[in-house]
Parts: sequence; structure tokens; C-alpha cells
Amino acid sequence: MPSEHNQRRASANENLLIDRIARSSAPLPAEAAQLRLGIGDDAAIWRPKPGHEAVLTCDWFLEGTHFLPDWHPSDSIGWKCLARATSDVAAMAGQPRCFLLSLALPEARTGRWLNGFLQGLRRASVVLRCPIAGGDTTSNDQVLIHVTVIGEVRRGHALLRSGARPGDIIFVTGRLGEAEYGLRLIQQRRGRIRTSDSRLRKHLYPNPRLTAAAKLAQLELPTAMMDLSDGLSTDLRRLCAASGVGAQIEVRRLPGPAIARNDRATFSSVELASHGGDDYELLFTVAKKNLDRVPKAVDGLKLTRVGAITANKTIEILGANGQAKPLPNKGWDPFGEHRKRYLLAEGGALRV
Amino acid sequence: MPSEHNQRRASANENLLIDRIARSSAPLPAEAAQLRLGIGDDAAIWRPKPGHEAVLTCDWFLEGTHFLPDWHPSDSIGWKCLARATSDVAAMAGQPRCFLLSLALPEARTGRWLNGFLQGLRRASVVLRCPIAGGDTTSNDQVLIHVTVIGEVRRGHALLRSGARPGDIIFVTGRLGEAEYGLRLIQQRRGRIRTSDSRLRKHLYPNPRLTAAAKLAQLELPTAMMDLSDGLSTDLRRLCAASGVGAQIEVRRLPGPAIARNDRATFSSVELASHGGDDYELLFTVAKKNLDRVPKAVDGLKLTRVGAITANKTIEILGANGQAKPLPNKGWDPFGEHRKRYLLAEGGALRV
Repeated sequence: MPSEHNQRRASANENLLIDRIARSSAPLPAEAAQLRLGIGDDAAIWRPKPGHEAVLTCDWFLEGTHFLPDWHPSDSIGWKCLARATSDVAAMAGQPRCFLLSLALPEARTGRWLNGFLQGLRRASVVLRCPIAGGDTTSNDQVLIHVTVIGEVRRGHALLRSGARPGDIIFVTGRLGEAEYGLRLIQQRRGRIRTSDSRLRKHLYPNPRLTAAAKLAQLELPTAMMDLSDGLSTDLRRLCAASGVGAQIEVRRLPGPAIARNDRATFSSVELASHGGDDYELLFTVAKKNLDRVPKAVDGLKLTRVGAITANKTIEILGANGQAKPLPNKGWDPFGEHRKRYLLAEGGALRV
Repeated sequence: MPSEHNQRRASANENLLIDRIARSSAPLPAEAAQLRLGIGDDAAIWRPKPGHEAVLTCDWFLEGTHFLPDWHPSDSIGWKCLARATSDVAAMAGQPRCFLLSLALPEARTGRWLNGFLQGLRRASVVLRCPIAGGDTTSNDQVLIHVTVIGEVRRGHALLRSGARPGDIIFVTGRLGEAEYGLRLIQQRRGRIRTSDSRLRKHLYPNPRLTAAAKLAQLELPTAMMDLSDGLSTDLRRLCAASGVGAQIEVRRLPGPAIARNDRATFSSVELASHGGDDYELLFTVAKKNLDRVPKAVDGLKLTRVGAITANKTIEILGANGQAKPLPNKGWDPFGEHRKRYLLAEGGALRV
């Protein structure tokens, strides 16, 4: 019979870890049919439906850079790592089909922390109809998570970033800056989290806009589309660069977060909406001639017109005073100041 | 004009890093035809050939666990991260089609180190006919590499681990333990590497056995197959577990590395061949009735019969004295002692 020490060691053994991941993942009948071989061999085997092609995307989710395991509930980390990777499939108007999970853990996280993580991950997997297909596990002194999502889209029907043309109208789904608002509240409180606080909801459990994206694609409305993961001022710049155009955003139209009364002295709704990352809302453009075909909402999500595409390749914001000025690129950059702020907030020490 | 400081900062900006990766990757006409959309949008789009299905696999390649950036030439790290992930596609008898590269780097590695890394990666990408499709970049205080390879295989023709039956004969390609021999030499010398030293070749620049695997599949010989990434004693156990069988290996048949005269007091060829990881040779089983159809070599690689599958679910090794005993599971486990040895070798300090 193994000693307690051996049992603890065994908990961190690679094969047993893979078993725990496999057991925690629900088989999802409809999708599983396309996933011909899952966890347990050298690789997974998957087949797109006839007339479809594969959408491939992946995301880092790293301790210190993207989350702090002592602050964030581990089920939120499990949910969010899959949700955010899946958002890139939504951004192409595709549907997720399966994912690969790569996990590197210190021994200390293989107990309760891992259970919570797998619970959140499983919930996301069921809600997003995206079963696990495989992955890789290893040990590391920090938690490292990497998710690859394999989706599919009807052949030739992917919505790209590169189709925006001068004169197109710019829309977003939902509210912008809500996730950043939640993150800043958590930073203020040095990680003391009440998950019942609705202001933290979008930071902890974001929802990729899969159904909304599919409906917009079905309506054949967007000329270009992407998801807002790093903040409007950064992501709009990327869409414009891919399309070879510029844009003007109107401050008065920005659907920022509703700031609680007590927070109004500290937070600016416009600032949060302009630069806050992690919302996973959709940013898309529509040709002017189709403007009256754009519904007020899709899948219960309000669509808001926030500006227009221009020919001059600059990104401007039109102030409440009627004056336009350049919109600074202040969204999330993993190499930028934002990351440093995040780490500073952790305990005063800058680890980068 | 940006100051030197700004230029340095800019070198680590995420967009510029992605540009450098994209520019360093050669377009590969034949494969690129299937890759309909590569780097630059929310996700990549890829389509398997008619009658084929997708093979999905991914691998961590982490500083401290899998390589030491101060020891290993960065072009070896670039080569190896793609080669080893691709080996899992070979193990299914598939062909690689494209890959996703996720890279997390400290600022200090974005200069010469990154150039060498991208050079090695590009060389592997060309040799393996596997272009980059996308990925994710972020900053981190240690180098983290994650590679997802998307391959394809003729529908229903993937070779799995689970098909071995009692009585089947066990074969391996090439020599086992050569990579471990190289690693140990590097550890002995505390990282002083002469890349011209042929004993280090397989540790630094392993070759996935894509052609050999495809030829074996074409001959319809293997009943089960996998690649040897963690060492025979660990991987054979996995193949047997998947097939619900056991195995007996014969010491006298093991094709261990040729040990240089001066190293013979230090290294045991049998020990290296039994447990050494990182060889990326193929392990496969053949039904006894097909034994005389097995060629001496495929793709210039010797095939060696090393033992047989048994019904009793134990993994044994038959010694030179004719006595069989259990083969201990002493291959690579990222949570095991091996990792600790590796890290100890770095500078005497145990970092796990």
C-alpha cells in the first residue's frame, strides 16, 4: 500500500493528471461525433463537416500576466481560459468544435485548486459545446495554461478583419469596459473577491459572442469583424490596419459600463470603454447602404453604432465638444505598462 | 525619431513581434494551398484534403523543464519545438500541414536569441513541410514555448496505440538513448556545447520519423504505433495500457547508442536505451504472421525487433542471463526525479 507521501507524489504524476482531466470532461454527443479520437493517444483526430473548413486559434493564459491564482477563483480561471480562446472562433463567425488544453502546474495546485479549475472548464465546455480533444501536461513553478480551439465555418463564409471600407459604419455588441471595471475593483481590494458582486461578473466569467456572430453572418451584414480582447483603441487599430483604412469613434455613442455611484469619483466610463480589455464583445463594420437592415439587438445583445470607417488611416475620437483628436493606443499589450500595473497591484513588487 | 530606449521597447511590442514571426516564416506553396488564412486575423483557416481528417496535437517546451536558454543554442530550441510536436503526427502515420506557435518571452530574449530561435524554427518548418498558421505572443520572465501541430491522415487510416495483441512482435526504428546520451554529456559539461559534436546531434536536432511512419502504414504492417518521446520503459507501458496487454523486451536486442570509448565508464548503453527520452523514434507492433514482410529498414532507418507483446499486462525485460524481471518505469516524467536532476545540473540549485 502506498504511503501518504507516495499518494501525494502520485497525484502529480503526469498519467494520473491526464486521467483526472479526461474524467472531468463530459462527453458531448453531437460534437463528439466529429471528434473521432480524443484524449489518450499520440494525437486527436477530428473531421470538419462537409462543406466546412477548420478555424484554428490559441491563447496563453498565464499566472502573473493574465490572472493571479491567489486572487481569482480557480473555476473562473477554468471558465475564462476556454471562453476567451473560443471568442476568436466567434470573431470569424465560426462554431467551436473541440479544444486542446495544455497545463503546467506546481505540485501545490494539483489538489483543490485543480478541482475548481476543472469544474469551471467543464462548465465552459458544456455551455460552449466544445469538448476537450487532448493537450499536454507538465510541471512548472507557476501555473501556465494554453488553450487551442478548433472550430469550423462554412467554406468561404469566415468574417475577416480585412473587409472594412471607407464609409462603413462601426458597431459593437453589448457594453465595453465592463471587464476592466471589474479588474480594477479587484485590484483596489487586493484580490478580495465576492463572486456575487455583479460588477466582477464579466471579468471573471466572460461570454464569447458565438450566437450573435453567427446571426450577424447569417444576415450577411458585417464587412469586417473581430472580437474585442485587448480594448477598442488597440483592436480597432488592428481591424483598420488589416483593411487599410482609418476610423472615427464618437465619444457620446460609446456604450461604457454603468458605474456604481460610489465608484464614480474613481472610474471614467469613457476611459474604460475606450481602452479596457477582456470584454470579448464583437467589433464589426456594415456598409452604409445596409444600415437600416441592422437590428437593434441580436441574441439579446444590444448593437451600438459607435463611429465610421474613414479613408485617412488615422484612428480618431470625436469628443463631446465636437472636436476630433487621435485616439491613443492604450489597450492591453502584454509587453506594455498595463501588465506592469497589474503586477504592481499584486503586492507592490514588480516582477517583470 | 524614436530614441534608442523607445526602439528597444518597441522591439518587444506584441504587434511587432508577430510581424517578425510572420516575416521569418517562408511560404510553402504546396501546403499553403490548404492553409486558406494564416497569421494576421483572429484565427487561421485550414481545410483538410477530401477523404482526410485532421490530426491535432500540442506540446509544451519550457525553460527549465525542457531546455535551458543559456545552454542550448536558440536555433536548436526553434528546431526542436516544432520537430517534437510533429513527431506525434508521425506516430499516427499522418503528415503535418501547419502549426500554431505560442511564445512568451522576457525582453532580454527578443534580440539575438529570438533571431536564432526563428532561424531554427524556419528550417524545421521547411524540412517538415509545415508552415506557421498563427499563434499567440506574450511577455514572461521565462521563455515559454507551446506548439500545436495540425496534420492530416487518410480517413480511418490513423495508427493508434490501442491495436497491439498478445503474440505481436515489438519493433523500434533507429537507435534508442542517443538523445539522452547527448543531454547527459551537456549536463556533465555544464552547458558547454560544441554543435559539431555528433554525440549531441540527436538531443539538439531530433528528426520526427514522418516518412518511415507513412511507409510502415502503407505496408499495413503496424497493429499499434507511437513515438518514443519519454523513453521506452515509460512509453511502452502506455502502448500496452491502451491495448490492454503486456510486453517482454530482450536486453540483447536493444539498439542502444554507440558509446564513445572515453564515456564507457560513465554511461550504460542498455540503461540509456531502456529509459532515455527525446529520441522520437517509432515504437510499433506487428502481427507474428507478418514478420517476414517487415523490411530491414525504411527510409534508411534500421528496424529492430526488441521483444514481444504478452497477455499478462506486465512489462518485463529479459536479461542477458535469460532471466526476466519487471522493467522499471524510469523514463521522463515532468513531475519526476528526472526533471529535478536536470535542474540540479544547471547550477546546483533545485528550483522546483
